[in-house]
Amino acid sequence: MAEKTLDNLFYDTLKDIYYAERKILKGLKKMSKGAQAPELKAAFDKHYEETEGQIERLQQVFEIIGKRAQGKTCDAIEGILAEGEEILEEYAGTDALDAGLISAAQAVEHYEITRYGTLKRWATLLGYDDAARLLDETLQEESKTDESLTALADAKANAKAQGAAA
Amino acid sequence: MAEKTLDNLFYDTLKDIYYAERKILKGLKKMSKGAQAPELKAAFDKHYEETEGQIERLQQVFEIIGKRAQGKTCDAIEGILAEGEEILEEYAGTDALDAGLISAAQAVEHYEITRYGTLKRWATLLGYDDAARLLDETLQEESKTDESLTALADAKANAKAQGAAA
Repeated sequence: MAEKTLDNLFYDTLKDIYYAERKILKGLKKMSKGAQAPELKAAFDKHYEETEGQIERLQQVFEIIGKRAQGKTCDAIEGILAEGEEILEEYAGTDALDAGLISAAQAVEHYEITRYGTLKRWATLLGYDDAARLLDETLQEESKTDESLTALADAKANAKAQGAAA
Repeated sequence: MAEKTLDNLFYDTLKDIYYAERKILKGLKKMSKGAQAPELKAAFDKHYEETEGQIERLQQVFEIIGKRAQGKTCDAIEGILAEGEEILEEYAGTDALDAGLISAAQAVEHYEITRYGTLKRWATLLGYDDAARLLDETLQEESKTDESLTALADAKANAKAQGAAA
């Protein structure tokens, strides 16, 4: 067996999140379509565009490390997105839908936050400073998205789910 | 279709994390068995015990809301843990194993952080103050576990994965 090092982990995890981001694009489209509040739809649409930019950054990172940009099936994101679909189905037409969608989207964000946090650290250790900078840009975007989803929940979705005036 | 509210979301998400925590127990056992560094094994074992306490707290929360403690298949944790198993297999015997295991365990922590963060907020809104306190205790534990895993990666695992002296 060939010895595996941090380089392998970095490349494998990069492929994992590259696959995940492209799945997330599809997930965001569904969540935007399903969301009731226009503000939440807008938030999902904005993050869709950001995600496109994040995919481009990943392609740059693959270029920096001199490897082909390719995905590797990410079971984690499949499972996380499946839970979002479940919310879309089980809460369709109810006042609790948006609150549930926000919670599902935040699970996606947290997966990305942990992956980009790890990748950024590893990139720095491996001397890929430009890659670390790109990964950090995405990490900051994901954290902001997570915070703005919390704000949307606080501002309206949770109250609506409680049966207060929408 | 019966109207669904925040109460339903709270109960469904509680069942989701209750199922997840019991799967995490099994995952932690495997990761502890696979980990190379004694400090990492010890961290997984410590978190195993914490997780047992977290499951008890969840049972108390079910009691507070007057519902039966039961799990509901959580696709997200199945996927996240499957990635941990992949690391265990693909990196077995290599110097990068511990760094990979830490990254996999942090993905688990982040899933818990997002779920407990949401549940705590919802508990407060629903007037389950005692439940919110219990959920917050677990949330704090998960955040500390995440930080201590980063510290273990920085202290040794990442350097070892890079081929530096273990």
